[in-house]
Amino acid sequence: MSEVLGALRQAVGAAQVLTGGDLSAYEIDWRKRYHGRALGVVRPGSTSEVAAVVRACAEHGTGLVAQGGNTGMVGGSVPDGSGTQVLLNLTRMNRVRAIDAANLTLTAEAGCVLQAVQEAAAAQALLFPLSLAAEGSCTIGGNLSTNAGGTQVLRYGNARDLCLGLEVVTASGEVWHGLSGLRKDNTGYDLRDLFIGSEGTLGVITAATLKLYPQPAASCTALAALPSLEAAVGLLQFAQARLGASLTGFEVMGEHALGLVRAHFPQLAQALPAAPWTVLLEQSDGEGEAHARALFEALLEAALERGLISDAAVAGSLEQSRMMWRLRESIPLAQSLEGLNIKHDISLPVSAITRFVAAADAALMVAFPGARLVNFGHLGDGNLHYNVQAPLGADGPAFLRDCEAAVNAIVYDAVDALGGSISAEHGIGVLKRDELAGRKSPVALNMMRAIKQALDPHNIMNPGRVL
Amino acid sequence: MSEVLGALRQAVGAAQVLTGGDLSAYEIDWRKRYHGRALGVVRPGSTSEVAAVVRACAEHGTGLVAQGGNTGMVGGSVPDGSGTQVLLNLTRMNRVRAIDAANLTLTAEAGCVLQAVQEAAAAQALLFPLSLAAEGSCTIGGNLSTNAGGTQVLRYGNARDLCLGLEVVTASGEVWHGLSGLRKDNTGYDLRDLFIGSEGTLGVITAATLKLYPQPAASCTALAALPSLEAAVGLLQFAQARLGASLTGFEVMGEHALGLVRAHFPQLAQALPAAPWTVLLEQSDGEGEAHARALFEALLEAALERGLISDAAVAGSLEQSRMMWRLRESIPLAQSLEGLNIKHDISLPVSAITRFVAAADAALMVAFPGARLVNFGHLGDGNLHYNVQAPLGADGPAFLRDCEAAVNAIVYDAVDALGGSISAEHGIGVLKRDELAGRKSPVALNMMRAIKQALDPHNIMNPGRVL
Repeated sequence: MSEVLGALRQAVGAAQVLTGGDLSAYEIDWRKRYHGRALGVVRPGSTSEVAAVVRACAEHGTGLVAQGGNTGMVGGSVPDGSGTQVLLNLTRMNRVRAIDAANLTLTAEAGCVLQAVQEAAAAQALLFPLSLAAEGSCTIGGNLSTNAGGTQVLRYGNARDLCLGLEVVTASGEVWHGLSGLRKDNTGYDLRDLFIGSEGTLGVITAATLKLYPQPAASCTALAALPSLEAAVGLLQFAQARLGASLTGFEVMGEHALGLVRAHFPQLAQALPAAPWTVLLEQSDGEGEAHARALFEALLEAALERGLISDAAVAGSLEQSRMMWRLRESIPLAQSLEGLNIKHDISLPVSAITRFVAAADAALMVAFPGARLVNFGHLGDGNLHYNVQAPLGADGPAFLRDCEAAVNAIVYDAVDALGGSISAEHGIGVLKRDELAGRKSPVALNMMRAIKQALDPHNIMNPGRVL
Repeated sequence: MSEVLGALRQAVGAAQVLTGGDLSAYEIDWRKRYHGRALGVVRPGSTSEVAAVVRACAEHGTGLVAQGGNTGMVGGSVPDGSGTQVLLNLTRMNRVRAIDAANLTLTAEAGCVLQAVQEAAAAQALLFPLSLAAEGSCTIGGNLSTNAGGTQVLRYGNARDLCLGLEVVTASGEVWHGLSGLRKDNTGYDLRDLFIGSEGTLGVITAATLKLYPQPAASCTALAALPSLEAAVGLLQFAQARLGASLTGFEVMGEHALGLVRAHFPQLAQALPAAPWTVLLEQSDGEGEAHARALFEALLEAALERGLISDAAVAGSLEQSRMMWRLRESIPLAQSLEGLNIKHDISLPVSAITRFVAAADAALMVAFPGARLVNFGHLGDGNLHYNVQAPLGADGPAFLRDCEAAVNAIVYDAVDALGGSISAEHGIGVLKRDELAGRKSPVALNMMRAIKQALDPHNIMNPGRVL
């Protein structure tokens, strides 16, 4: 043990190998569900230092957990409790290395905070569209290794779709210099996409070349009230057909989800009265705000005439747009204030969402009468955060402890039956590893294991996660 | 040998195992550069038949070459000359299995011709945007296994970006049922993107779930004349900033490339007089033709004022738009009529294109005075078809035979120096296999070999291609 620590001190300098004091910021995930203990916390400052760390770990057969902002949802970036794993924190590697405006690309180190990437792009009047709740503290390396999603996927895709090239330290401590800024490149297997979403189990992403976009001239938000989830799916189709790529956001919020916001944040103005379902639409426009607003008004009027929606409000200013987004973004916190939740990050074909919700709602109501369903999410991507809260007045912690497995079984069975995914945007980590092993096709699992064995034969990269 | 043929006949029926007669349609690539000889041509009609074929080959250690429309550019889908490889032709598997309009997805079998996929989408007023010269005969399986590009990549991405899920027969003859229609799914390694672009060397794609888009209300085309390639890069940036996602095509044509069209197809109307560079811009609009035309006119007027362009013409009708595209699409044929070519399918960061062309042009003019450079391509994606033709009056076949290696070395050295790719959209196959081995990073090549070994340990899937 002390031998590998010596090698690590040689690799990055003694000051960047932490073994004493309060390491909880590194060892405990932010939701405080995973309390790990690291052999040491190592904070390299460069790619060659990361490579030296990995070589030291490889030599001693020591497991290695890469960590960015430690904002993950599945326990994938904290060490286990054994005290034998090295925690490799990448936040010192936080430089934007280059911006190439003519190529619409930006190259950033893994530890660069997402918001810093967004801001560096904005400083050139360009857009890096990845956007999610943790953007002020999550890092681009973490976003890529978990293939993060967020609110702009409908138009711009997941983190995967926003990355052109990677720099990676392999499990043997070599550096793959794959920082390409190319939009077309068919020279062999797609290693980039293999590392993206592999949650640090195949190698350590140290830098990435990302796609930028021109900033839209204006963006505009609207809310629509709907009688049913089916109507929300209909509105999505209708809005996509009319607005095409200008439709950049489509979020759905169930009555109970928005009700929690109403109860816990009464100061937030709600532009529409309560309805069974509320949709937030966002439009990005190349021409300007007046044009965007006119398109939205025409769209929503036509939707009203068709009976798809019962009411609508178009933001009249940037401030009103922000207020509408704040409603949506306040749901998770309102939910926490209300009590503990059994959370699900699932996706389905958009065409199957209504059937899923009907089936899961019904099965849960039979098994757990009175359970409260906090249902909201990125409907445009088929991604729901379908969360289950104890019945009103019931013991929240007891519900979580006693019912989580049974609730999960009901929800994931309904997901499986309709061709959905049990992890849409949060990944697998430790939390869903066993669930994955039980539910994913054995053919796919065997291919995954063969790839893991091929690229990390000594199983030192984030061992025990994903597989 | 006869043993494996017996097993293949059992797998697909004797009538679908061809061993005699004229098999040149299967054994020779369409450009007639690779003349192979198959042990037998096998034409399965279903996924389970493909699996049975692969199992038979695996049992006998027989190599297997998958083939769709046989329109590849790199010799990747015809057998070698040994007479020991089985040619697996997938064109009987040509069904569109399903269209899910609400989910904007279409599921098609590998042998489905690209144009049939486009037409099936169009019949539902939806768009499958992959579009390339061979679309009337290439198949979606081939498009995916080579990650095809084409003319709409600027807006919609490569074949990879248009695929949500795959059905694949693995090298051991198992079926991976990965036909997901999900836009967010983070349940393990990205096997889909590993098979896409692997040119049949890891498994056989038998079906795919593809992304569809709403059809734009109108599309409109324009031509612009430019004094320099630098101006074309400037126009690209300018048009992207103003049109955003509405800019769906941006093709550049050098003076010599368009001159060949003028010479060989004098009946094709050229809307603009000859200029050093001509750009074709395509816009897709959600509102209608008049709106698209007005945006184009404003854009080109502003570009004219800024001195980016010297002249422009906006198509006044669908027929005029088609004529403009026909100019662009006639370049390859005009070039063939003019004589043999040394072809390059390269890509660069858009910001490096001007430097590349200046460097490569200069080096070629020194080494091969008078050589004619036919330069055109998808500038919006940084993808040039940078082709080199013998000097006027010189012996074309002799030039190709004697100078190809030296020309390639000059071009690919210039590509490498600027972080480009030696195969943007055509793949590696046999043609560029050795070039790849010499130029790609050893770290990346070793990872590719480890993956190949992991998923196809007996090297039966398209052996000798890519790696």
